[in-house]
Amino acid sequence: MANELSTLSPRMARAWYVACLSPELADGPIGRIVMGTPLVLFRGPDGAPAALLDRCAHRNVPLSIGRIVDQRLECAYHGWQYGPDGRCAKIPGLCGEADKEVRSVPCFPTREQDGLVWVYATADVEPEGKPFAVPSIGDGAVVTRRVVEVEAPLHPALENALDVPHTAVLHRGLFRGGKERRRIQAKVTRTAEGVQAEYLGEPRPEGLAAKILSPSGGVVVHFDRFIFPSIAQVEYRLGTDVHFLVNSICTPVSDILTRIHAVIAFRTRLPGWLVKLVLDPVATRIFRQDAFILKAQGGNLRRFGGEHYTSTSIDVLGLQIARLLRGSESGPPEEWTREIELEV
Amino acid sequence: MANELSTLSPRMARAWYVACLSPELADGPIGRIVMGTPLVLFRGPDGAPAALLDRCAHRNVPLSIGRIVDQRLECAYHGWQYGPDGRCAKIPGLCGEADKEVRSVPCFPTREQDGLVWVYATADVEPEGKPFAVPSIGDGAVVTRRVVEVEAPLHPALENALDVPHTAVLHRGLFRGGKERRRIQAKVTRTAEGVQAEYLGEPRPEGLAAKILSPSGGVVVHFDRFIFPSIAQVEYRLGTDVHFLVNSICTPVSDILTRIHAVIAFRTRLPGWLVKLVLDPVATRIFRQDAFILKAQGGNLRRFGGEHYTSTSIDVLGLQIARLLRGSESGPPEEWTREIELEV
Amino acid sequence: MANELSTLSPRMARAWYVACLSPELADGPIGRIVMGTPLVLFRGPDGAPAALLDRCAHRNVPLSIGRIVDQRLECAYHGWQYGPDGRCAKIPGLCGEADKEVRSVPCFPTREQDGLVWVYATADVEPEGKPFAVPSIGDGAVVTRRVVEVEAPLHPALENALDVPHTAVLHRGLFRGGKERRRIQAKVTRTAEGVQAEYLGEPRPEGLAAKILSPSGGVVVHFDRFIFPSIAQVEYRLGTDVHFLVNSICTPVSDILTRIHAVIAFRTRLPGWLVKLVLDPVATRIFRQDAFILKAQGGNLRRFGGEHYTSTSIDVLGLQIARLLRGSESGPPEEWTREIELEV
Repeated sequence: MANELSTLSPRMARAWYVACLSPELADGPIGRIVMGTPLVLFRGPDGAPAALLDRCAHRNVPLSIGRIVDQRLECAYHGWQYGPDGRCAKIPGLCGEADKEVRSVPCFPTREQDGLVWVYATADVEPEGKPFAVPSIGDGAVVTRRVVEVEAPLHPALENALDVPHTAVLHRGLFRGGKERRRIQAKVTRTAEGVQAEYLGEPRPEGLAAKILSPSGGVVVHFDRFIFPSIAQVEYRLGTDVHFLVNSICTPVSDILTRIHAVIAFRTRLPGWLVKLVLDPVATRIFRQDAFILKAQGGNLRRFGGEHYTSTSIDVLGLQIARLLRGSESGPPEEWTREIELEV
Repeated sequence: MANELSTLSPRMARAWYVACLSPELADGPIGRIVMGTPLVLFRGPDGAPAALLDRCAHRNVPLSIGRIVDQRLECAYHGWQYGPDGRCAKIPGLCGEADKEVRSVPCFPTREQDGLVWVYATADVEPEGKPFAVPSIGDGAVVTRRVVEVEAPLHPALENALDVPHTAVLHRGLFRGGKERRRIQAKVTRTAEGVQAEYLGEPRPEGLAAKILSPSGGVVVHFDRFIFPSIAQVEYRLGTDVHFLVNSICTPVSDILTRIHAVIAFRTRLPGWLVKLVLDPVATRIFRQDAFILKAQGGNLRRFGGEHYTSTSIDVLGLQIARLLRGSESGPPEEWTREIELEV
Repeated sequence: MANELSTLSPRMARAWYVACLSPELADGPIGRIVMGTPLVLFRGPDGAPAALLDRCAHRNVPLSIGRIVDQRLECAYHGWQYGPDGRCAKIPGLCGEADKEVRSVPCFPTREQDGLVWVYATADVEPEGKPFAVPSIGDGAVVTRRVVEVEAPLHPALENALDVPHTAVLHRGLFRGGKERRRIQAKVTRTAEGVQAEYLGEPRPEGLAAKILSPSGGVVVHFDRFIFPSIAQVEYRLGTDVHFLVNSICTPVSDILTRIHAVIAFRTRLPGWLVKLVLDPVATRIFRQDAFILKAQGGNLRRFGGEHYTSTSIDVLGLQIARLLRGSESGPPEEWTREIELEV
């Protein structure tokens, strides 16, 4: 939608989002937009990340074009200096005390874990809950990361990441989409915090990627999960040897942009470097195809003034994700499990 | 105006417009905007053109980035397939019937004639009337086509195509604008469907183009006609040998863009290839000058928030065209004929 | 602010602004925007500048793409010709009188002085007051000019030009910003037409520019003045030999653009050409730094929907300038003098 952010549930503002990768936050301040709010990120005296509103309290210049001086963030215009709590510690030229409440900049709670810098979307409050912790799939797993920006709102991005039917069409030949289709079940489980689909009886996918992962075929254990506020998690297992876990951690940037930090972990029978060598170009292609279609979808949502969707039973998770994002349920939802059929 | 489309008469939505040239519609679907509505055009199983709203019923992806599969239009995202009537014929992965009313995409009537693909501006209705049929000027005529996009609303584009006084200034040296001016009459005739000006006593124009057409001079028979909803027709004759008919068939694309499909037919005493050789660069120059001035005019209409026009008697057709486009008459207008004087 | 022009005092529309430099107005018409109003400027039969609304009365084409014919301004479309008073003098093709009141274009008073073409911001009235006259600093002074466009509203541009504290930070090393800071007084004097700061006890600045101007140091006589409606004047003296006067004459173009015509006059003990040789690159760098920061500030004012400023006592003139621009005082303000302290 053209103004998706305004449709989000108030709970979405009391939640954690990834602002950047840990190594992006080095010597100088950087600017990032999260939930429509421009932020400046920098490291404080203890090396921990700090996030302030990207607007100097004085003349409103973006602090992200400033620099770090004496372990404080200095505005490029008049040199006002801020600590990691957003308090003004120095005003060059002023005779008297710099620190006053009105000279503070709103400060957003931060956490750093799993190589990611998380910010809480509401300033100057004690955060509720913790950032999503990326689960481990055990020793010996290979972990890679990707950052993808898609020119679409959050909901289409999340639905895409957890959608099975499009893989046989948009990613035809790479992922699914063989000649012979097979009817399988999906067990959908809804909780207060998310929604999960477990696919039962799914054959090993036909595409190139799948053949490399499991040359001998077999039945797949496959879960797709949406975790509030913005995590799309896809898990595959074939027996005990092959295990894939893709966490697409989405940051709603603006009404028309979503940034995805994907953390991809896998174990297979083959050496990790070899799997990575083969899968990296396939993954790149898949992400590009998704970004292309999401941009086209996002553009059409804008020019038609919002969603005009029709859904079927095989849109397994999209509607539940929308309910969770938009808070369109009164009170905590009943937890339930449903079964649906689809062909893959 | 900045929002011209919203000022158009409801009758303008019950009318035919050119969406593209016949050869533009070949193997794949193409996207075109007509009257502010994004359309996807493709050829159905019988080769006839089809026009649907350019938005998949499912997740609103533009169908124009899809492809033709099994003679149906397939969405690039989940592979939903549509027939030329807009009904959904296939949903990959769905167990059950694809075709349901809510899964249809609005379908716009089409016609193909004179090498042009016409669409009716209202979906899912029985069209009133027929597309404009390009008149023949007899065997042996040479017919050429041009497609020009002008960054201006429909009304300025139509007025420009039928305006005599600007030719001596904007197209100075090419068309009119000699030293000696001569007073002539124009007989203006208004009907319910259009308005026509017949110029009486007009000398052969002085410009380069005119000299080539009729080296011996003479008195011109000259008609300018506006034909509802958006055709500007200019006809010249010199005796029985020289005959020119320019049909500028305009498509209102958006508030700030008009696409003109010009069909130019002529017969002269000279061989057609020779006339074409000489006139093509002159015509190119004239269309460029018009596109330049219309863009400047359109930009000024936007930045000044609409029209602030002053007219004189030699703005022969512009006001009547505006009345017809905007439906600013209550009931069918009286038919009348007036005479005005001007100098050419 | 995103829509600063709408916040300006009505008095700001009854004032003079620089439209262009004298030499920019030569043979042909040129287009300029002043206070959000598109103007066409040209020289009339007597060589004096004329300024009309940049919109032909007929079909609203910008007159600035026209040409001068018979010492009149001719529209490029239908050739309507206007005199320097905006009256229509000729309509090609029309049988009858061209000049009628409704065919006039609004005409803005003009003055040409100090190599600048000034326009009054209200059309078709007798102007109140005169344009600002650039003061002379005596014979033997070198006078240079610069035109700088800054992507910011008028108020931030004016405040920047008269602000002392930023010079030690943004222009660090060029202007001020040495290690040792010294406490000085500023005497601020407010009148109905402006506000002035006199800096008392200021040492010769430490930066490169200052060292060249006055190798021997000494105490500076330094005034910063805002003169209604849009002039920022900075004056420096060291003894009787060194005198600098920078007049930054600002033209509010749009809500997000200000054009500055700076007239810089100086006298020093060194030859003028030598001072110019050394100072020109320094001045270029200073103007670029200011344009950079003002663009960043202007962008942030837009994305945050207006000013969220905090001020301190060393924001010596900014608030008074805002009061004068926005007319936020009821009646003429009390005249007063205050002293403040700051460190430079």
